[in-house]
Amino acid sequence: MFLNDAKLIRQKIAQATQILQELNIDLWLTFARETSMVSEPALDLILGQSVTWHSAFLLTSTGRHIAIVGHFDAENIRDLGAYEQVIGYHKGLSKHLRTALDSIQPKSIAINFSERDVAADGLTFGNYLTLLKILEGTPYPESFVSAEAIIAAVRGRKISAEVERIRRAITATEALFAEIDAYVRPGMTQRQIANFLQGRIEEEDYDYAWEKSVDPIVTCGPHSNVGHATPGDIELEKGHTLHIDLGVKIAGYCSDLQRMWYVLEDGELEAPPEVQHAFSAVLGAIQEGEAALRPGVAGWQVDAAARGFIIDAGYPEYMHALGHLLGRAAHDGATVLAPQWERYDGICQLAVEEGNVFTLELHVPIPERGIMSLEEDVLVTKDGTVYLSNPQREIRYISAG
Amino acid sequence: MFLNDAKLIRQKIAQATQILQELNIDLWLTFARETSMVSEPALDLILGQSVTWHSAFLLTSTGRHIAIVGHFDAENIRDLGAYEQVIGYHKGLSKHLRTALDSIQPKSIAINFSERDVAADGLTFGNYLTLLKILEGTPYPESFVSAEAIIAAVRGRKISAEVERIRRAITATEALFAEIDAYVRPGMTQRQIANFLQGRIEEEDYDYAWEKSVDPIVTCGPHSNVGHATPGDIELEKGHTLHIDLGVKIAGYCSDLQRMWYVLEDGELEAPPEVQHAFSAVLGAIQEGEAALRPGVAGWQVDAAARGFIIDAGYPEYMHALGHLLGRAAHDGATVLAPQWERYDGICQLAVEEGNVFTLELHVPIPERGIMSLEEDVLVTKDGTVYLSNPQREIRYISAG
Repeated sequence: MFLNDAKLIRQKIAQATQILQELNIDLWLTFARETSMVSEPALDLILGQSVTWHSAFLLTSTGRHIAIVGHFDAENIRDLGAYEQVIGYHKGLSKHLRTALDSIQPKSIAINFSERDVAADGLTFGNYLTLLKILEGTPYPESFVSAEAIIAAVRGRKISAEVERIRRAITATEALFAEIDAYVRPGMTQRQIANFLQGRIEEEDYDYAWEKSVDPIVTCGPHSNVGHATPGDIELEKGHTLHIDLGVKIAGYCSDLQRMWYVLEDGELEAPPEVQHAFSAVLGAIQEGEAALRPGVAGWQVDAAARGFIIDAGYPEYMHALGHLLGRAAHDGATVLAPQWERYDGICQLAVEEGNVFTLELHVPIPERGIMSLEEDVLVTKDGTVYLSNPQREIRYISAG
Repeated sequence: MFLNDAKLIRQKIAQATQILQELNIDLWLTFARETSMVSEPALDLILGQSVTWHSAFLLTSTGRHIAIVGHFDAENIRDLGAYEQVIGYHKGLSKHLRTALDSIQPKSIAINFSERDVAADGLTFGNYLTLLKILEGTPYPESFVSAEAIIAAVRGRKISAEVERIRRAITATEALFAEIDAYVRPGMTQRQIANFLQGRIEEEDYDYAWEKSVDPIVTCGPHSNVGHATPGDIELEKGHTLHIDLGVKIAGYCSDLQRMWYVLEDGELEAPPEVQHAFSAVLGAIQEGEAALRPGVAGWQVDAAARGFIIDAGYPEYMHALGHLLGRAAHDGATVLAPQWERYDGICQLAVEEGNVFTLELHVPIPERGIMSLEEDVLVTKDGTVYLSNPQREIRYISAG
């Protein structure tokens, strides 16, 4: 079922109501302004458009949905059909917000701040101070709690219409990788390969799943920078690996995949043993991670399964997470499949849930050949996983001919 | 002079150092993470790329520039050549940040929060709490002040390379309006006209200056929604006005212009008197505003000049600001030329500065004809203004033929 945007938003808001009941929180209050300048990622889920002036979106556990926005934005929000009450104010929002709260009388008010989850941290410090000022003399600030559990659930538990959109982005990405098989020859530069993919993305009118300067990332042989590096002038050589990390966004939902090629030397029929060994190790580690991935498991446990495998195979451990949630953003917030490092504190302990879509990704270096790095996208089901991508199980080859 | 991006960023960082000295602030600390999900607009000025893990950018009044970022992001930031010290951390940023602060010993630390200026409010509440935790037991949190004055000056005082980029976006927008003269005929819908412009924007590989769904805004006759409304199915009719609000972004800088057409009835040679009168009133009000605009004047005073003129001309006052800053964003933060309403509190009192680029815009309704709305872009000079756009001084006409 492929829902239109307004229907999808209405379904997500209905889901949010259930989650508020489940978490026993009376009111979820999203407070933002000028989101084209400072984004509020919660609005992607419950509004799907930007706001200009200070705006408040109130969702209650009893199913009330109220939007208080600048009068300029009111019409588009009414058209969405998701908020029964849309107040378009002219000079200021304060009294409208206080009146709405008085009518709800919430005992708990979740607001969007979170140290550990960027997707739940859309309330700026300045907006928080403004909210306190608006509510001065009322009991409401004492009822503030973090909305991180709400947002993690609304964002993380994909409904079927969202999974379909992610799948569409993945299918499109796999088609682009198939074009790479036909296009790439030794001697091409990282930039040439990236330009080809970006040209195709723009021809097809896809969006980029992340910043264009590093989408795709193209790693040619052992001398490319590893990480979020812009494709440069390094040429693809025979005997080297080619690695591409690519994501597209279609209808608001992302893919995020990595694929590997080896460039055959003249007369070579397959990759040398160390390349094959690295491929098997990375593939095996991803499969270990996938086997550990199911509802109720903590993120770090999934990472540990893959990390243990790759270390046992004699490779250095990867200095990042095994995986992250995928959805409206390529890094979709909340739970990560990551080791218990300071940098992942609080998010690697969160439990995997049914409906989550995760990436599974890691790399190892192969001296003098390049890196070996794969990434798959999987959906967590009631008792396990389903691959949304067609996982790469064999090295892809590029020959000079 | 058209600088490349890295040179432009280096010039803005040099400008920031001078501004820190002028404001007598020792250190400006920008603290952010995953800016592709929650944007930190200060990074547009001093970095020009996104960051992934928690990242800190320290600019001192003595000219030191330190970046502490996830190791994945370090290489691209080194390539920028703007930060002498780039620390790419693996597991956590805390000790690097404390060490850097200990070496600077700042007496005042400006952080990015502001109730009144969204462009200076990129620090999320969650990141603020994290910063406090990292600095627990140090004297530094006591030295926190708002960076709003720094950011307003760095963002607002355009250097010549920035003005050139804005001018380029304006010139491109005016060329698109010239294409509208040739393209539009009565009977076309808002959506058709918007689609034509969006097709051209994408052909030319421009970016949108604001959200695509409302760029352009197309208002046909008296039955279109006014404001930030997505172009719909209303047809352009003879005897009605056509209004287009359009902005493009080229090389990271925006235009924001509104132009007006009148659709001649059969046999009509010019617009009827009420349309002409409305045009003269709006043009006159913009000219009043422009005459009041110079360094040192408060934003609300400029608005008052135009607002008084339009009320004296017998029209209802416009329910928005006369103008906003323009630059990397269409709404470029800080000073607005706005009335002293709650919604503009604190930003309409700010003083206009040399190097600011402002929009001047307002509209009046014409019963049974449509709206009359113009917008120009002007640069504030040492003692007055220079139009960056070619201001519309006459109604543009569309005929059936």
